[in-house]
Amino acid sequence: MLETINPATGEATTTDLTVTDDATLDALASAATEAAPKLVSLGRAWRADLLDSLAAALEEQRAILVDTAAEETGLTEARLNGELSRSVFQLRLFAEAVREGGYLEAMIDHAGDTPLGPGPDLRRMLVPLGPVAVFGSSNFPFAFSVPGGDTASALAAGNPVIVKAHSAHLLTSQRAFAALQSGAERVEAPRGTLGIVYGQAAGAQLVAHPAVQAVGFTGSQVAAKRLQQIINEREVPIPLYGELQSVNPVIITTGALDERGEELATGLAGSVTGSGGQLCTKPGIVFVPTGAVGDAFSTRLSEIVAMQDPHVLLGARVHENFERVRDELIAAPGVVQLAAGASTDNGYASAASVLSVDIGTFSAEHTEEAFGPLVLLVRYEREAQLAEALHSVLGSLTATIHCGAGEPESLESLTALVAPRAGRILYAGFPTGVRVSWAQHHGGPWPATNSLHTSVGVTAMRRFLRPMVWQDAPESVLPAELRETDRSVPRRVDGVLELAG
Amino acid sequence: MLETINPATGEATTTDLTVTDDATLDALASAATEAAPKLVSLGRAWRADLLDSLAAALEEQRAILVDTAAEETGLTEARLNGELSRSVFQLRLFAEAVREGGYLEAMIDHAGDTPLGPGPDLRRMLVPLGPVAVFGSSNFPFAFSVPGGDTASALAAGNPVIVKAHSAHLLTSQRAFAALQSGAERVEAPRGTLGIVYGQAAGAQLVAHPAVQAVGFTGSQVAAKRLQQIINEREVPIPLYGELQSVNPVIITTGALDERGEELATGLAGSVTGSGGQLCTKPGIVFVPTGAVGDAFSTRLSEIVAMQDPHVLLGARVHENFERVRDELIAAPGVVQLAAGASTDNGYASAASVLSVDIGTFSAEHTEEAFGPLVLLVRYEREAQLAEALHSVLGSLTATIHCGAGEPESLESLTALVAPRAGRILYAGFPTGVRVSWAQHHGGPWPATNSLHTSVGVTAMRRFLRPMVWQDAPESVLPAELRETDRSVPRRVDGVLELAG
Repeated sequence: MLETINPATGEATTTDLTVTDDATLDALASAATEAAPKLVSLGRAWRADLLDSLAAALEEQRAILVDTAAEETGLTEARLNGELSRSVFQLRLFAEAVREGGYLEAMIDHAGDTPLGPGPDLRRMLVPLGPVAVFGSSNFPFAFSVPGGDTASALAAGNPVIVKAHSAHLLTSQRAFAALQSGAERVEAPRGTLGIVYGQAAGAQLVAHPAVQAVGFTGSQVAAKRLQQIINEREVPIPLYGELQSVNPVIITTGALDERGEELATGLAGSVTGSGGQLCTKPGIVFVPTGAVGDAFSTRLSEIVAMQDPHVLLGARVHENFERVRDELIAAPGVVQLAAGASTDNGYASAASVLSVDIGTFSAEHTEEAFGPLVLLVRYEREAQLAEALHSVLGSLTATIHCGAGEPESLESLTALVAPRAGRILYAGFPTGVRVSWAQHHGGPWPATNSLHTSVGVTAMRRFLRPMVWQDAPESVLPAELRETDRSVPRRVDGVLELAG
Repeated sequence: MLETINPATGEATTTDLTVTDDATLDALASAATEAAPKLVSLGRAWRADLLDSLAAALEEQRAILVDTAAEETGLTEARLNGELSRSVFQLRLFAEAVREGGYLEAMIDHAGDTPLGPGPDLRRMLVPLGPVAVFGSSNFPFAFSVPGGDTASALAAGNPVIVKAHSAHLLTSQRAFAALQSGAERVEAPRGTLGIVYGQAAGAQLVAHPAVQAVGFTGSQVAAKRLQQIINEREVPIPLYGELQSVNPVIITTGALDERGEELATGLAGSVTGSGGQLCTKPGIVFVPTGAVGDAFSTRLSEIVAMQDPHVLLGARVHENFERVRDELIAAPGVVQLAAGASTDNGYASAASVLSVDIGTFSAEHTEEAFGPLVLLVRYEREAQLAEALHSVLGSLTATIHCGAGEPESLESLTALVAPRAGRILYAGFPTGVRVSWAQHHGGPWPATNSLHTSVGVTAMRRFLRPMVWQDAPESVLPAELRETDRSVPRRVDGVLELAG
């Protein structure tokens, strides 16, 4: 029997769950393979209803899901309620996108003479890949786990999904899955539309299984590497979409501190320590100018953090890794610990920390992601020093710029500086709190992600789709969206984009 | 000095080219890195002009390019003229797409209240990756080589390109590159926009070079594996877009043969042996019904092929591989050689072949791609036998269905059968002759390609782009296409697609 641990106390509870055995996994994979063409046949309107039904089913189980997750993760009920709302909203947003149909990228080139001779009739759109494996994260038991964005986007794209329950929240996974299953049954989803496996060995076998056509993953680079090695040994390789790690650099200018130093200190403290700092978009490295306003900011931030209670981290592994990286950073050349919050020996709790280093000493050694409540301030004298310093910072999900109103030139030069190193650039904001919407991009240069895709927002669906073309096809074999008179989705016809009619 | 070989005679000529040394490669990579932001600044209109200028420059050098390629590849002048026209057309089509701007996938979500609280302003579009390495193919010295689709789509997306000249057509590569360079100079392209390297070692170093952000490749699975291993050892991994191999199954029913058996025999012979059968979309495996019309078709096809002159293949390696695979197929269980064209001992020429096997004996052993003028007929009795047989056939770029007018049910069931195994399904046609257009998809399940993207057609650009989001950005730092009042490109605003104004 698998155990689940309450990170606030460190107490283990035995669950009724066991590692999924080979036969069960095979059966799940077969069912998913059989479900795949059925999901295609059921069409977009039905699939949108499925997503709405899953959302409704999660809402109905809100109380038990939040309670279970609170015990297993140490996250607050407020945070978990917000996260569940986000998962529900996300499913409904994908339902909307599926109904709208622009994600199909439908295109028609009619037969006709071209400068290269007669051209055939070509009709293109994106089609689902087939069964997708989803590996949830430790830090988002809902929004990046069983009922999360990878599951929602893979299903929205028309694929069956098999999730691997994260060991840090097994019961939450089990109960969230049960809610999804009941939502799927209400709309009579084909058997095999959803599946779940438990245990690391089952996760590895899932990735190796020939039925699986793609993998969505949120977690560490080490774990991603392990999954990639399994994929490399498959007869048929498949894409692994990994969201891995990110230090999310923030640059604050003197002008910004002059205007709103107090607001920035409070805001940054919240962004660094909210959810125990266990957010992929937590600002880990903040460039702060030297001089009086920079000192005042640094002092104020330290005061706020020093007053904080210990943060219960998600589990033994997160706790151990965080304290190891924290201690390495404290021991790194030139680093000063400015502030530490309260600590405790109970469970897997850690104190929040503010560290500081001079930009002259700053190097790659100072850039490891501390996944927890910690920020490293890098004190700079001149903007010209930032270019070299940023070379040490690996690709991130986000980069944030805080300028004053009178610094349009810095705004431009700092944008150019961070653009190659991030997937999202924020102005006068904080990177935590990722909006779920059409235009969102949650991805970035390696090692933020290992792909050119997002894991949040509507375009996350593209990861689980491939193009298909029908050439000179009789109408009877074409998908509805590609038939001549259909106007249900936006299409590009002979190179000209047309809105749905 | 590197040698080039005339495959019609086997004679080697010494060129003035040498393997690119490390210092030269480093300089090219640095220049490309410096060119990258300049290309972004120059904007879409300028970039479209660049592509048009490259097209014009290729046209001007048509005579020498075709002559050179004819000597180095053994392909006919007619074919090479067609291929050069295609390369020119392709550059112009990408220019059109760059001007239109839909490829940017521009999206704006305005700030506002959402069910999850206040949402920031998000503006998303695709941005170039940076320097791209392009490995041309042996079989398309223009359209899939130096001035080919990978180069055109990577440049169109806004990236500098460094090509690795294919050893089978070094002088063609050198001269095509010179033409491109002159076209680039005419529009004052930044130094480093285009580069070229020679020699296998330089190709490997190019893929390993930290400046390179993506690789486009057309060639064998073995070579792709070598490049992937180099990528796996990089500090920062990059995408490899490989178009690898394809047997392009064709299914012909009795109904189709009843209606147009002669036309099918002639058409198939042309598709199998055109360009010496050295096309990635050559139909390699054709399912033909048993019985009188099937026999008549098989006999007629054999007659046509038996009358053919020897086909000069592209070079020693292609020739050796083709004859090895051909001999293995002839020796495989149940295979009968129905016809062989004329053969010769001159240069790297091979005879065309028609082989046949009963579907009961057909297995994975019969499915290796013979890259040259060869087709294997698989004789089937009942449509029900096809499902199992197709399980032995790996993913292909295309699958083709020939039904009679009175077989709507077969049309539907055969479509369902081939859909998971191909990127393009053709009806009553032949897969060779790939239309370059907006809706084209030239890609397919592994090993046809190793990605979910096309290498032909406008959407090939997506391979060399990544999403970027600006959050709450002042207008001054936004790209033109994302400014509030801009209407130059299609955009999705608050979830609603809007045409350019």
